[in-house]
Amino acid sequence: LNQRAMEEARERQSRMTKPPGSLGVLEEVSIQLAGLAGECPAPIPEPASVAVFAADHGVHAQGVTPWPQEVTAQMVRNFLNGGAVVNAFATQLGAEVTVVDVGVIEDLSPVPGLLPRKVARGTADMTQGPAMSRIEAEYAIEAGIEVARDLVAAGNRCLLTGDMGIANTTASAALISAFTGRDAAEVTGRGTGIDDAMYAHKVSVVRTALQVNQVDPADPIGVLAAVGGLEHAALAGFILGAASLRVPVILDGVIAGAAALAAVALAPDARLACIAGHRSSEPGHAVVLEHLGLRPLVDLDLRLGEGSGALLALPLVQSAARALKDVATFDSAHVSQRD
Amino acid sequence: LNQRAMEEARERQSRMTKPPGSLGVLEEVSIQLAGLAGECPAPIPEPASVAVFAADHGVHAQGVTPWPQEVTAQMVRNFLNGGAVVNAFATQLGAEVTVVDVGVIEDLSPVPGLLPRKVARGTADMTQGPAMSRIEAEYAIEAGIEVARDLVAAGNRCLLTGDMGIANTTASAALISAFTGRDAAEVTGRGTGIDDAMYAHKVSVVRTALQVNQVDPADPIGVLAAVGGLEHAALAGFILGAASLRVPVILDGVIAGAAALAAVALAPDARLACIAGHRSSEPGHAVVLEHLGLRPLVDLDLRLGEGSGALLALPLVQSAARALKDVATFDSAHVSQRD
Repeated sequence: LNQRAMEEARERQSRMTKPPGSLGVLEEVSIQLAGLAGECPAPIPEPASVAVFAADHGVHAQGVTPWPQEVTAQMVRNFLNGGAVVNAFATQLGAEVTVVDVGVIEDLSPVPGLLPRKVARGTADMTQGPAMSRIEAEYAIEAGIEVARDLVAAGNRCLLTGDMGIANTTASAALISAFTGRDAAEVTGRGTGIDDAMYAHKVSVVRTALQVNQVDPADPIGVLAAVGGLEHAALAGFILGAASLRVPVILDGVIAGAAALAAVALAPDARLACIAGHRSSEPGHAVVLEHLGLRPLVDLDLRLGEGSGALLALPLVQSAARALKDVATFDSAHVSQRD
Repeated sequence: LNQRAMEEARERQSRMTKPPGSLGVLEEVSIQLAGLAGECPAPIPEPASVAVFAADHGVHAQGVTPWPQEVTAQMVRNFLNGGAVVNAFATQLGAEVTVVDVGVIEDLSPVPGLLPRKVARGTADMTQGPAMSRIEAEYAIEAGIEVARDLVAAGNRCLLTGDMGIANTTASAALISAFTGRDAAEVTGRGTGIDDAMYAHKVSVVRTALQVNQVDPADPIGVLAAVGGLEHAALAGFILGAASLRVPVILDGVIAGAAALAAVALAPDARLACIAGHRSSEPGHAVVLEHLGLRPLVDLDLRLGEGSGALLALPLVQSAARALKDVATFDSAHVSQRD
């Protein structure tokens, strides 16, 4: 981050016609945006695009969710038809939606808005061995980097993470446990909604996957390959790509959070481009946010994924930038300062 | 609220292509909007207008804030010139700003965007007796009702509260203590930022005002007249006006909250039209939200007023309505349901 631009932003916040500090967390966001842009005020982070990375999970076979696996592909078609929550929110909030197939089992017909980047037809079952090979993880990371690069080349000034993959909260829990050292029970949640028996089973599946694979958090690609999903690897690449281009990336929920742990393990400075869009009701997400030192902008018990929580934060981020850019100073507006 | 429309919204939320409940608080908001509109899905609450009610406070003479009293009028001019945070946020988020002078001491030149509804040149010092007469409080309430009515007649489908008045967190604390029975120390905050000595003094000023005036919470107009501000009375009317027209009203921070207590004391059903835009860092605001049973949508340590916190919630409210309106159902999108 550009320290001079951040210092300018901090100083400008103190001269704007408002009590110092009265914009709370949004002042910090505006300073981060200035640091990323290398200028103060930072440009408004628009246009914005949410990339929804979709993939299937071999661990679905372990019965960790009541949703059939084909729902991944069905929801991808729903995204492409504009029928999902991510579409509704993007319409309302002024963002584009791009769907990226990095590992859906089914073949998906080529249509506008779908980027075919299938690395594999889903992952393998991580309770039986690694979810994917190291080279597959690297391909997926690369796909994510390229999507970020292409979206920024197309003019986007803010990227948002989205995801779709039935059973991907299970892989997220394994990743979070691997990267933070927290116990599986602390970071496993009820995902899209499961009963007590299935929840207990889900925790044991996460624990088994970590025992079978013996991951080393100092080898982030190895961790992703062992217990991650293809969308997690791609999202890690997406975050790295945004950060390398100094474009802010608004993270959605627990899946993006798990991917951010991998991205930050690969390149610690990637964290500086990240804005936590929201806190989901998944317990592992709170662990991620604490681990990364990120404060979520929205906290409304969402647990949907798709990028919905990141999208809700977009107008808050844009408003933070707008205030820094447009608000008059005490001098320019002839407003008296406090005694 | 229309129970049938709410039931339809609840049922529709369960058929939308997302896990049931996964939109968290926004599902409740969409149901409230359907109940207010009397139809499901409710129309998107746009266009939206924020009304910034401005007034001065006699209690300023007691030294409860480091800001000079003339800042009220200076900030009104800043609003009218588009230089304040409320303008920046409104620009970014697609809302209009109307400034209403209900009690600024200075004469303000007539300009577009300023509604002259001056009831008095500020209130009297509530530590010496009532802040205003009962008839002044009634005039200010009426002015607020009329602003709501006029904004809705102009086509607005969502109203937001805004306020400007140096020293108005002191009056807010007195109102909140009067309506909730909580001690002055629990509901008095540091407003725009004061030191420990001034804070202790502010608490004692609030306590004195309540002792001098001996208010009866069963007489809300009497409470407003005794320890309120003209903008509090007008905001109470604004909330009542919005509620009577069944238009959602997004509340800003502690000043709007204090006014909402008065509005709900006058007409309990007014609460049903209220959406808590945010939780400010003022301790009295949390007391208000708890008392009214409202969950704030944004919680980012803002303590600015002007309507800034209400504006930040606007896209969240609109997105809640957009999802209810646009998202496909499992049947229509051919997505499998959970087992």
